[in-house]
Amino acid sequence: MDVKSIIAPVEDDLAAFEIDFKATFESKIDIIDQIADHLIKTKGKRLRPALVLLAASTHGKPGGDAIRVAAIIELIHTATLVHDDVVDEAALRRGSPSLNSIWDNHVSVLMGDYLLSRALCLIVLMESRDMMSTISKCTERLSKGELLQATHGFDPGISEEQYFNIISDKTASLMASGCEVGAYLTSGSADIAESFRKYGEFLGKAFQITDDVLDYVGDEETIGKPTGNDAQAGTVTLPLIRALEKASPSENAQIRGLLNGEWSDDSWPTIVDFTHKNGGIEYARFRALEYSAAAKAELVGIQESPAKESLLAMADYAVNREK
Amino acid sequence: MDVKSIIAPVEDDLAAFEIDFKATFESKIDIIDQIADHLIKTKGKRLRPALVLLAASTHGKPGGDAIRVAAIIELIHTATLVHDDVVDEAALRRGSPSLNSIWDNHVSVLMGDYLLSRALCLIVLMESRDMMSTISKCTERLSKGELLQATHGFDPGISEEQYFNIISDKTASLMASGCEVGAYLTSGSADIAESFRKYGEFLGKAFQITDDVLDYVGDEETIGKPTGNDAQAGTVTLPLIRALEKASPSENAQIRGLLNGEWSDDSWPTIVDFTHKNGGIEYARFRALEYSAAAKAELVGIQESPAKESLLAMADYAVNREK
Repeated sequence: MDVKSIIAPVEDDLAAFEIDFKATFESKIDIIDQIADHLIKTKGKRLRPALVLLAASTHGKPGGDAIRVAAIIELIHTATLVHDDVVDEAALRRGSPSLNSIWDNHVSVLMGDYLLSRALCLIVLMESRDMMSTISKCTERLSKGELLQATHGFDPGISEEQYFNIISDKTASLMASGCEVGAYLTSGSADIAESFRKYGEFLGKAFQITDDVLDYVGDEETIGKPTGNDAQAGTVTLPLIRALEKASPSENAQIRGLLNGEWSDDSWPTIVDFTHKNGGIEYARFRALEYSAAAKAELVGIQESPAKESLLAMADYAVNREK
Repeated sequence: MDVKSIIAPVEDDLAAFEIDFKATFESKIDIIDQIADHLIKTKGKRLRPALVLLAASTHGKPGGDAIRVAAIIELIHTATLVHDDVVDEAALRRGSPSLNSIWDNHVSVLMGDYLLSRALCLIVLMESRDMMSTISKCTERLSKGELLQATHGFDPGISEEQYFNIISDKTASLMASGCEVGAYLTSGSADIAESFRKYGEFLGKAFQITDDVLDYVGDEETIGKPTGNDAQAGTVTLPLIRALEKASPSENAQIRGLLNGEWSDDSWPTIVDFTHKNGGIEYARFRALEYSAAAKAELVGIQESPAKESLLAMADYAVNREK
């Protein structure tokens, strides 16, 4: 199933989401409105809002609350993207990340803060203690995961366990919270919400591992950015972690040298080759499939519906996509 | 009264605050603990926690809740300071702001996000809808004020009204929220809390205007940083706004040229001279005194206590301090 078919059951709700999402940015401040316009024009796949609305749709029709939660989750996601664009000389030292060229770093930081604060004000208005607790803890995990990742910049010694902790915090937590809250809003059941939380957690990991694999094997034209971005920026992900584990000591030392030395035109092809040869890509693909299956397994007890079908298909899409 | 005497009535509470504040940083992540240690070692005057505790002390003994609110307010303040340190080439183009040299921009952004998220998690745990609403709205105003200020970077046409809106959002709002919540915790009265909110709002404006005056007339050794920082970074504040209003068209044009042109050794002395001559410093001092008096007037109906005396003295300190 392609993304269009997956989101079909919540197409109308996603249209309502777009209107609400836009309204949440509202301010009387020019610079905020300009940036908001830009962010809305350059919108992503809206996977997180779709997950909230699909999860809600498994037990009823998503109401205004579900649409608002979708907007809050997307606001938080947008805030992290805006803050990700703030780079430093260290991150730039080997390349030119897609730094936002329209505003300077300071404005990007402030805009991210504004989006995050807006999201939190909107949660408070919803007057649900559980939802506030879930989502505020999640924002803490997002920054924690990114900080952990930064700690391990250019660290070829990072372990699989550390990698999984990082992706759980920085990627899976927001999907897990969105699915949990979405399902709770229409089912009213804490047990069902917990299954959806786990579904979102496993799905998020499958998505992130696949992203990391695509940074090695993706077609640059299809994914719309050069491969090797992560390694060049110092982020060592699962394919390489596994390959370094499996390689001979001498090969391991050679690749560590490459990672921490001057980046040349040969560096990336050599690392990709090494990663393939030592089974890193294959292993990461396998782990992603494992998480995708685990996500689907969480929905076994959930009543059949088009939304449930879509969520199962989303778990396949997470690992099969080419971008 | 000096700061030491002002905080005397809440000395013990401030010691309890320091312990709680440190505990709020707790994580099992090395980089967070290292940055937390650094932030605690380089602590500021703790004015905001003192305000929360003094406001609470006017109607009883501050309890654990007041100490926790003091910690939350200081966490939010610290997050904004950490994010302020993220500068861009534009802001650097004329000088060298005290950019944090220990971590790179990206880590500073993430750490600020972590502190803000921590603060919001802690508010949720307090289970008070009003407090959550007050403080989440305040975080929104902080980023809004800073964004507004960034909008007016190098804008000699900024009006007094725009200036007052900016300082209300970026400085006064957090002091106002701290005083409001602190007073409410022990008095339980919405009316009293509202008086303290206004007190904090006026006090915050008096503080910020005085900061802006000190950037013109402060003794560099006493304030511990070079004067002229704001103007050089493009922030046009009240003394200069007023002087530009009062100056002749030709003088006005000359200063606008200086502000937007290449910065030379003569630029700053010329601007200071111009600001003095056209009554900008005198006027800003007068407005700060006005706000200081307005802050004190809000406490007229409040029962006498050492804490109230301190809050009145704080309003004097806001405008009389030399750093």
